[in-house]
Amino acid sequence: MSNGIRLGVVGATGQVGAVVRRLLVERDFPISEIRFFASERSAGTTLEFRGEQIVVEDAATADPSGLDVAIFSAGATMSKVQAPRFAAAGVLVIDNSSAWRMDPEVPLVVSEVNPHALDEAVKGIVANPNCTTMAAMPVLKVLDAEAGLERLVVSTYQAVSGAGLAGGEELLEQATAAVAQDAIGLVHDGSAVELPEPVKFPRNIAFNVVPKAGSIVEDGEGETDEEKKLRNESRKILELPELLVSGTCVRVPVFTGHSLSINATFREPISPARATELLADAPGVQLAEVPNPLEAAGADPSFVGRIRRDQSVPEGKGLALFISNDNLRKGAALNAVQLAELAAARLAARV
Amino acid sequence: MSNGIRLGVVGATGQVGAVVRRLLVERDFPISEIRFFASERSAGTTLEFRGEQIVVEDAATADPSGLDVAIFSAGATMSKVQAPRFAAAGVLVIDNSSAWRMDPEVPLVVSEVNPHALDEAVKGIVANPNCTTMAAMPVLKVLDAEAGLERLVVSTYQAVSGAGLAGGEELLEQATAAVAQDAIGLVHDGSAVELPEPVKFPRNIAFNVVPKAGSIVEDGEGETDEEKKLRNESRKILELPELLVSGTCVRVPVFTGHSLSINATFREPISPARATELLADAPGVQLAEVPNPLEAAGADPSFVGRIRRDQSVPEGKGLALFISNDNLRKGAALNAVQLAELAAARLAARV
Repeated sequence: MSNGIRLGVVGATGQVGAVVRRLLVERDFPISEIRFFASERSAGTTLEFRGEQIVVEDAATADPSGLDVAIFSAGATMSKVQAPRFAAAGVLVIDNSSAWRMDPEVPLVVSEVNPHALDEAVKGIVANPNCTTMAAMPVLKVLDAEAGLERLVVSTYQAVSGAGLAGGEELLEQATAAVAQDAIGLVHDGSAVELPEPVKFPRNIAFNVVPKAGSIVEDGEGETDEEKKLRNESRKILELPELLVSGTCVRVPVFTGHSLSINATFREPISPARATELLADAPGVQLAEVPNPLEAAGADPSFVGRIRRDQSVPEGKGLALFISNDNLRKGAALNAVQLAELAAARLAARV
Repeated sequence: MSNGIRLGVVGATGQVGAVVRRLLVERDFPISEIRFFASERSAGTTLEFRGEQIVVEDAATADPSGLDVAIFSAGATMSKVQAPRFAAAGVLVIDNSSAWRMDPEVPLVVSEVNPHALDEAVKGIVANPNCTTMAAMPVLKVLDAEAGLERLVVSTYQAVSGAGLAGGEELLEQATAAVAQDAIGLVHDGSAVELPEPVKFPRNIAFNVVPKAGSIVEDGEGETDEEKKLRNESRKILELPELLVSGTCVRVPVFTGHSLSINATFREPISPARATELLADAPGVQLAEVPNPLEAAGADPSFVGRIRRDQSVPEGKGLALFISNDNLRKGAALNAVQLAELAAARLAARV
């Protein structure tokens, strides 16, 4: 670990933190020193990294001085307090939570889409987008550059791991119970199978879809916070403050991999053939005949397919398409690591 | 069985046929004589009905004379040949397949939406809509009457039972295999769990979503036949030949219950409050805070909720909403039985 940067991982013991640790190894990230942080509860435990046992420090009390970059995946409450403390100690914070995303002094960055915005981190904090928004950005960026994006109608198919480890456990528990009772009974009558009570989601999630991902925002519009993030973060990342967005965020019984069904309207006509040609070369994007979360899980790109003319939009100015992406990798850990790589390259260039 | 009509059920041994038989009992359908028909393979078996054992006849060779009404749920190939033969014998055919839906001389009827169209069955054949389209019709009809429906953008969440009994078996087999291998491994990497090869669907369906329900139509537009049915059948049932529709039809790991995420645009403004008020009284519709297929399965109405302003449409002329409905009941068997009830009432009035 002699060459490279001094890196901190905050929330190292969590679901996204685990993927961050794996990606750092997989991508041969240039690290001269690594430190792991978590909440008080997990502090003191050890995590293996490249053959070494690293003791996890308490994020709330440890002195972060000496770190170059810290990747935070420990929730908004932790980030609100600790990100400024780390930044004040001279650490560039890359934050995975929603705490700082809409702060005008905090850039919201997708590595392939708006890396230049890293220069605007005047607070020493850079935000990583919501995982659902993230999946769509590398796709929409190239289409916007070609034809001028004006409107998005999005319905999502969001995996339970977007709700943390407990989400996956709840799906597995319910699915196991259903299968043990010969779930085929669900074909004719949902009540014929007894499922454990839902905890993490507002309805049972096994063999069901729950069209309310996130919590309803109390502004009278009836949208969830996930639906608002999709609008607000898309506008900020694509630098289209007037972009029209209507989202419906739905939880589905998928462990990992968020998907989006998108109808996009443009200022200029754009054919499915031209869109496909552009997307074939777009960074962070891979064409797929039938994009699906099971195949996207464990992979880096946003898979895009079913690219068609939106026949409800006149003059060839609409496209319909479907995207699947690993919400824990690009949707969270991978983009954070990519931003850290960009930061590391800048630090190396400065030396 | 002395009062009532002489009823035939064609495809009586299939998945929808079984629900038809159950509904006839549940709804105390007025029957003076019942006959069951199926393909040659199932002919000769017996099915119990109201305590009697009924021998299943071969639909291709039996003489249908004497029946008043026949409900067909035996697929398009069977309907294409046998529906005209039954109709020629004076039997009113209510057909669940896609064979006759777009024939201009065959009315396509949802019992609550356009019952008057029953009078236009000049060929002696009435068609039952596709189950996905069906779920939305009772909801969209009242909104169209109020504000003038102009455009629909729809993403679906379709249950495996829409693909027949084999669909449910495939989901159960894959889910059982995944659960036995501690499917939580799917959280980080889809390849960590070995699933049986997909047969009925183009990708694995357990813990996945497959954005290609139906087959791609070879007209260069890239839509599936399910997506085209949604457009064409909506136009015919709502009597809006110019209605703009873009659909993305997606299979999800749900046994029964189709759901639709809909963005609807209207000629006149319509508020979510007004839409909710209208839908509270609409026949065949039930308001739900979080409509979901598990709760819709085994029930009759189209459950509708998440009714919001579509913020991407100016002047309050757009709504976003979510619908779940039992695709085997209202989506197929129930509407067919309701049409048979309407026909029975007319026959009774004639006597």
